[in-house]
Amino acid sequence: MKYSIEDIQNKLRKKLKGNRYIHTLGVEYTSVCLAMKYEADLEKAELAGLLHDCAKELPAEKLIKICSDHGEKISTMEFKQPFLLHGKAGACLARNKFGVEDEEVLDAIRYHTTGRPAMTLLEKIVFVADYIEPNRKKADNLTELRHLAFEDLDETVLQILEQTLDYLEKTDKEIDCHTIMTRDYYKKLLRSS
Amino acid sequence: MKYSIEDIQNKLRKKLKGNRYIHTLGVEYTSVCLAMKYEADLEKAELAGLLHDCAKELPAEKLIKICSDHGEKISTMEFKQPFLLHGKAGACLARNKFGVEDEEVLDAIRYHTTGRPAMTLLEKIVFVADYIEPNRKKADNLTELRHLAFEDLDETVLQILEQTLDYLEKTDKEIDCHTIMTRDYYKKLLRSS
Repeated sequence: MKYSIEDIQNKLRKKLKGNRYIHTLGVEYTSVCLAMKYEADLEKAELAGLLHDCAKELPAEKLIKICSDHGEKISTMEFKQPFLLHGKAGACLARNKFGVEDEEVLDAIRYHTTGRPAMTLLEKIVFVADYIEPNRKKADNLTELRHLAFEDLDETVLQILEQTLDYLEKTDKEIDCHTIMTRDYYKKLLRSS
Repeated sequence: MKYSIEDIQNKLRKKLKGNRYIHTLGVEYTSVCLAMKYEADLEKAELAGLLHDCAKELPAEKLIKICSDHGEKISTMEFKQPFLLHGKAGACLARNKFGVEDEEVLDAIRYHTTGRPAMTLLEKIVFVADYIEPNRKKADNLTELRHLAFEDLDETVLQILEQTLDYLEKTDKEIDCHTIMTRDYYKKLLRSS
């Protein structure tokens, strides 16, 4: 690896706003603790958690440019709401600016917002850590979800997706079809018996 | 509470050496994640984890003075090896310099090194977090202990105590009798059936 965890923390501390950096550290450590519980690779979890939002604060045109330059497909929905690209753009930056070559880590960054059907363990860990990390105060039902995260990871993924879709529907916000596809996959997996 | 978590982090960042502060953040976040798993109070776990080593870098005479000034008993062993006082002195500083009034939090700081028989959930959380946090690289068997910590907290406490006593015996270092008393308590609790 090109840079150490500490090098990357130092870069992100300068690059991200205060609250975003605090959230970033929360996701980094929560990802490692979930990796301890579920016997995933701790170093990969730490790196993916640390870098998951590295592109979050970039302006819309920059997100689109990074994705175009690196051959990432951009959907109509993503063109309309470019912040949805921060996972894809984050994976591009992680590879090109932070020297990450591990495809598993890059995919965990890429899919951390909407998830995707049949996520890897590492992808689920970062997806869940992003939602439950200790500095996040807003979501409903967080106490139960935080406990559940250390009991049943798939069930936590499903409940987060359902809660997110509920919120987007109630607030009349547009919904990324990948969130629905992921929810449908985990609903079928867990509720079809 | 007199200071926010962020205020205390900022004070400790200036007060502690780089590696100690990194360890401190690791214990803070690992304590919160263990609190998620075991349904403890997240804010207390965060505060106790953050402050557990606040007195660790003080010189021997200062540790003895703080404990004497605040009516803490000092054993012969602690007079000989004053670093053993950093838990007690840390609890005194947490109360007097950082405005912590919660006795549960103060006890978790006080007993984090040797443990004590019949620890509270919060005490066990900080005791275990101190040993397994992600930045610690030295101890044997860490992968297994980290997984176990999210499966069975009492068993993890016992294994950490046994491993610590083994290490102290092998390296011919003096052993604090509180570590033995704690080990004996958890051995009886878990192995007597």
